[in-house]
Amino acid sequence: MRKQIAILGSTGSIGTQALQVIGEHPDLYEVYALTANNKVELLAEQARKFHPEVVVIANEDKYAALKEALADEPVKVYAGAEALCQVVESQPIDIVLTAMVGYAGLKPTINAIKAGKTIALANKETLVVAGELITGLAQQYKTPILPVDSEHSAIFQCLEINNPVHKVILTASGGPFRTFTMEQLQTVTKEQALKHPNWSMGAKITIDSASMMNKGFEVIEAKWLFGVTPAQIEVVVHPQSVIHSMVEFEDGAVKAQLGVPDMRLPIQYAFSYPKREHLSGERLDFAKYNTLTFEKPDTQRFRNLSLAYEALHQGGNMPCIVNAANEVVVAAFLKDQISFLGMSDVIEKAMTRVPFIQTPTYGDYVATDAETRRIAAELVINGMK
Amino acid sequence: MRKQIAILGSTGSIGTQALQVIGEHPDLYEVYALTANNKVELLAEQARKFHPEVVVIANEDKYAALKEALADEPVKVYAGAEALCQVVESQPIDIVLTAMVGYAGLKPTINAIKAGKTIALANKETLVVAGELITGLAQQYKTPILPVDSEHSAIFQCLEINNPVHKVILTASGGPFRTFTMEQLQTVTKEQALKHPNWSMGAKITIDSASMMNKGFEVIEAKWLFGVTPAQIEVVVHPQSVIHSMVEFEDGAVKAQLGVPDMRLPIQYAFSYPKREHLSGERLDFAKYNTLTFEKPDTQRFRNLSLAYEALHQGGNMPCIVNAANEVVVAAFLKDQISFLGMSDVIEKAMTRVPFIQTPTYGDYVATDAETRRIAAELVINGMK
Repeated sequence: MRKQIAILGSTGSIGTQALQVIGEHPDLYEVYALTANNKVELLAEQARKFHPEVVVIANEDKYAALKEALADEPVKVYAGAEALCQVVESQPIDIVLTAMVGYAGLKPTINAIKAGKTIALANKETLVVAGELITGLAQQYKTPILPVDSEHSAIFQCLEINNPVHKVILTASGGPFRTFTMEQLQTVTKEQALKHPNWSMGAKITIDSASMMNKGFEVIEAKWLFGVTPAQIEVVVHPQSVIHSMVEFEDGAVKAQLGVPDMRLPIQYAFSYPKREHLSGERLDFAKYNTLTFEKPDTQRFRNLSLAYEALHQGGNMPCIVNAANEVVVAAFLKDQISFLGMSDVIEKAMTRVPFIQTPTYGDYVATDAETRRIAAELVINGMK
Repeated sequence: MRKQIAILGSTGSIGTQALQVIGEHPDLYEVYALTANNKVELLAEQARKFHPEVVVIANEDKYAALKEALADEPVKVYAGAEALCQVVESQPIDIVLTAMVGYAGLKPTINAIKAGKTIALANKETLVVAGELITGLAQQYKTPILPVDSEHSAIFQCLEINNPVHKVILTASGGPFRTFTMEQLQTVTKEQALKHPNWSMGAKITIDSASMMNKGFEVIEAKWLFGVTPAQIEVVVHPQSVIHSMVEFEDGAVKAQLGVPDMRLPIQYAFSYPKREHLSGERLDFAKYNTLTFEKPDTQRFRNLSLAYEALHQGGNMPCIVNAANEVVVAAFLKDQISFLGMSDVIEKAMTRVPFIQTPTYGDYVATDAETRRIAAELVINGMK
């Protein structure tokens, strides 16, 4: 029996690489559903190649174009956020890969968990925004959540059944501005920020990597995935991105997963778990990667990391506030409406202005998200007044 | 129920560290038997502290002294190789730690396997000399063999139930002469060779580390412990000794175990497996170990590594020949009777002079060992004629 897979966000970086993995193993995996936000052409092309049962375009304005592009294909075509949430519940689906960007991943992930689908979680914002809710539901519905982030996949690969985690060590490349001074950071452009030294990814996560908010989110994600406290999560800057992350155990033994930077590995591992399958591509060669270095992250220059730890300490809807504010400022930065360092200022301000809720419901998350976006957008427009 | 432990070679480096581990966990482990070759005073001191049921001194000339030293202790005192072989079979023993040096470990290890005792294997020569015999017996008697070498323990810690090993990557510190030229190697002394940069160990293994015969033996050991072919075993020089070794899987994922160089960890892991227990001491701190480097081993300067691979390829009694010749030349080197580079010459010559046996019996191993020692000693005395 081939595993039936739904890919939410199939036209993005993770989505396209997931399809490469599936293409390498037609005997193991079958595409049941593909969804995208806007990219009609690529989605139609993917559908013609992988023959899913269903495709969904989230942006309803694009429905007609997609329907027409797939007129000759035996595939169901739907549109809109609601259709997306329903499709993940389809009975034949085994695994839902949540590879869409941002807060939009929350609702369909909740539906997939309730439908008992194994979650291959690439949308980290889901756990950042509502980690307690999501992990509670996963427990209630006995739904496995398998990480697709390379860091969390590395940690997941190092876990042991018999032994608790003493500490997780998240590695961080440090991004393109690792060695920049505060003065240099003041004037960096989006073009500079979009050039990540090791990983080829979408725009949002590339900016998050440059600002280290991505690592901050990964800290929050690690808490929920592995049940550790903030004090048990250490971030180490490791510019070569060869050690993808580590686990320290009670006896002091540290286990690491290493490899060339290639997102197909954690994607495939989430699909094939607990087995591994052959994966084409470059193998780790220590003649090439002959020096691995480590340094402490500088939270003076990269304040987002501290803000994320602070949000995690406070809990409640605070991580949701940080996430929503960050989505606003990253979009603004990509439109040259805010400076690189200005992003952290807005997030920090939003954390004090949006009402704090200690034990939010799903409705509270939705309200917090909307309110934060309004406040953050104002702060961007009014220049932090 | 506390695990009952027998330590063969309790006065050596591994033995004394094993007693430290036991001393840290009096609730988990109890010493049943301690054995040593010659060191009466230390053995008596250990017996007074850990209250074993039995102590054995292998050198029978030392029996009277040991008996007298423990006259006031309620402990059975035996002497001789035969007593040692019998003691490991004692019913209450759960784990036998084989921490004696060299070929002498073979017979008692066989007895312990046949008696169904879990083997914590620190005596790598046992597997080098008779890997096929030993692993066959372990299978027959369903006796687990848990590695205590830091490299093999690291690999063992990285194994996965669901997935075969694609490759093992043994790390090597490169020893004190890693950067020496051939000219420099020609004149190195035992004093230089005994100064290992990272690990504090006994004299024999320290010389083996300097000559890289230790790594060659570990290659052979890895074959038998993990069921891999020589082509699946790679040696990488890693001077910092932080990554203790690695496993590559089918999908290209590499897993590693890291830590500060501390033999107590693999010793304790063999005792506590599959659980881990707290261990005192330094934790891996990437601020301190901030650069890890890797290089290919140079088999021109360190010929022993090639000789070991060659012996593994040929199989039969060839690794036994290499081991016996090596024991002779290391002893000679420690008495200034042979040069550092001369050691490899004698081993290589012995490999061609001692009769090859493809499928040796236990008796063949004993005969091969004796014959090789005779030939190697001659080669040392007659200067390779």
